[in-house]
Amino acid sequence: MTGIVVLGSTGSIGQQTLDIVRAFPDSFSVVGLACWQNQELLVRQAREFRPRFIGCDGAPELAAKAGLDGCQCASMEEMVLHPDTELVMVATTGAAALLPTLEAIRAGKAVALANKEVIVMAGELITREAQRHGVALLPVDSEPSAIWQCLRGEDREVARLIITASGGPFRTWSAEEVARVTPEQALRHPTWKMGPKITVDSATLMNKAFEVIESHWLFDIPWEKIEVVVHPQSIIHSMVEFVDGSVKAQLSPPDMRLPIQYALFYPRRLPNPQLSRFNAVETGILSFERLDLARHPCFKLALEAGQAGGTYPAVLSAADEVAVDLFLRRRLGFADIHRVVAAVLEAHRPESGASLDAILEGDSWAKRKALEVAGG
Amino acid sequence: MTGIVVLGSTGSIGQQTLDIVRAFPDSFSVVGLACWQNQELLVRQAREFRPRFIGCDGAPELAAKAGLDGCQCASMEEMVLHPDTELVMVATTGAAALLPTLEAIRAGKAVALANKEVIVMAGELITREAQRHGVALLPVDSEPSAIWQCLRGEDREVARLIITASGGPFRTWSAEEVARVTPEQALRHPTWKMGPKITVDSATLMNKAFEVIESHWLFDIPWEKIEVVVHPQSIIHSMVEFVDGSVKAQLSPPDMRLPIQYALFYPRRLPNPQLSRFNAVETGILSFERLDLARHPCFKLALEAGQAGGTYPAVLSAADEVAVDLFLRRRLGFADIHRVVAAVLEAHRPESGASLDAILEGDSWAKRKALEVAGG
Repeated sequence: MTGIVVLGSTGSIGQQTLDIVRAFPDSFSVVGLACWQNQELLVRQAREFRPRFIGCDGAPELAAKAGLDGCQCASMEEMVLHPDTELVMVATTGAAALLPTLEAIRAGKAVALANKEVIVMAGELITREAQRHGVALLPVDSEPSAIWQCLRGEDREVARLIITASGGPFRTWSAEEVARVTPEQALRHPTWKMGPKITVDSATLMNKAFEVIESHWLFDIPWEKIEVVVHPQSIIHSMVEFVDGSVKAQLSPPDMRLPIQYALFYPRRLPNPQLSRFNAVETGILSFERLDLARHPCFKLALEAGQAGGTYPAVLSAADEVAVDLFLRRRLGFADIHRVVAAVLEAHRPESGASLDAILEGDSWAKRKALEVAGG
Repeated sequence: MTGIVVLGSTGSIGQQTLDIVRAFPDSFSVVGLACWQNQELLVRQAREFRPRFIGCDGAPELAAKAGLDGCQCASMEEMVLHPDTELVMVATTGAAALLPTLEAIRAGKAVALANKEVIVMAGELITREAQRHGVALLPVDSEPSAIWQCLRGEDREVARLIITASGGPFRTWSAEEVARVTPEQALRHPTWKMGPKITVDSATLMNKAFEVIESHWLFDIPWEKIEVVVHPQSIIHSMVEFVDGSVKAQLSPPDMRLPIQYALFYPRRLPNPQLSRFNAVETGILSFERLDLARHPCFKLALEAGQAGGTYPAVLSAADEVAVDLFLRRRLGFADIHRVVAAVLEAHRPESGASLDAILEGDSWAKRKALEVAGG
């Protein structure tokens, strides 16, 4: 039994992680579950999975109040560092996961990374610490998981990573139509069911640039060897071209439970009848299109910030977090997400290097600045 | 430098093997080149690659006559067994390669298998001997090579092999049109340039059943876990579905030099600027269709013979060899290939087991019987 902590257990990835734990009851013992606000679901999860710890922002008495026997409230850091914890699923959104992720790595726990903000903000720091502590970083995002699977057993003779993008819900819309997109429209992703932050990031293609940044750090591949191609069906989750020209692709119907299960059991693959199967004939067609950079200004913006390094990626991630939140609360238009993030990046005076302090400072500066730019 | 013997050096795969040897002059020393009839090309190859041995059917004095210094004529067996030979590329067509392949395996040489008749005829015997002698069988055919690449680094948790088929040149033709197909039409394959025997086998889909049989033996996968799907672009060369539902595919523009190079250098992948690269956007679409068994009766016939085992597969391969040869010499119609092979299989009284003697006897009986059926 692997002792597991799920950070962000009430979110989309957190719930699907618990689906996998439920499907393999003899494989995991749940040490801790942490969420942000959804107390009701957290208590239900605690009743089912009987963790030693739960954590919910601003509810330090929840375990006692809900009458959960043998369960106590704890911070994310506490549950991550508990000796029974072997594997930490980082499934929160945003910057909140950075510190507990670093704590987990430094304590030698395996880390399954569904939160890409952590690796976008602090890719250099996180991968360096993971290497230093001999800790496995297990990608959960479908595209990095695909790359990870394609690299399995290969000797890193990589010519290119080819990351696929569904193109989002507005792939065929005009620029004017896109400018008027509502939160309801942005949250209707054509192929994936995901949490709200990542769904909006997918619509702006910010998310795709985040995956490029994530793949750069996770797989140690130079920027110029990472390409993005639009693949509207979201069946091929990414590809790797090797130096001999051979390309490997990983395919499956869009269902996050597959990459979650792969990360949780790596290197084992186990049958799970709940996961639907790829049917080539029913699928019929897999298509590819060039990514139109002009239509998706956030992609280029984010990629440049990622490549600039230092504190830029943290500022990028933080400004985007604020801008997307404001968009979802109807205080910004869809096109304003780019405007706000670009203005914050423009105003940023970077620290040299990217220490944890500099990253956290960049994060909080960028959040303040984004609110200021958005309000102005 | 790997000491290599190329059996069938003047054929399509043989020439492409020498293209790879030429591209990596420091990696191989050519010990022997053998062909069937093309003396002129063999002598040219010998001048370029300076093998110790050449062999050409019915021309035992060729080396001396052509004034090839330091080169002598030898049988396929002799060159295969020479101590300098480490790797044997079996690139002849038909049954002629069976004995030298077995000799190579028993002498502990690595065997790159481009000739699928060998493994169709004697899959059980060949794989058993390879295992016994700790010899690597390196698949060269693009579909088995794709499967081999997809299985690399995986723990054999295989749910299905999905072998792709271009569908051949007559995929959209009516049954009446197909019955009147000429050799010229059959030799015009839509995506691959190959030798005449395999091109006709591709048109009848016999070749696709051979690949199923080949994959069954090479990868030790039960028959019911091997599927065939039509993929007209021949970019995805095959796929493997693992037990968790994840599918890996191997892609590349159709060029046999890639799987040849992969087999020759396995497990290394080396850059080769001569090989063209996959371009997703230019490719645009990858499509899949159900294989129409009614239109391709040879597929079912061959698969049943493969599954029946014993001497049936050897009889299948031999009858097909004769029927295709007669078709190419305009002594049979295209639809007669099925008729002749079916009649020979029908008439066959199988040996129990499949010893080398039984296989060779089945082979020569089937060849006589096929000529008899075709002539009658």
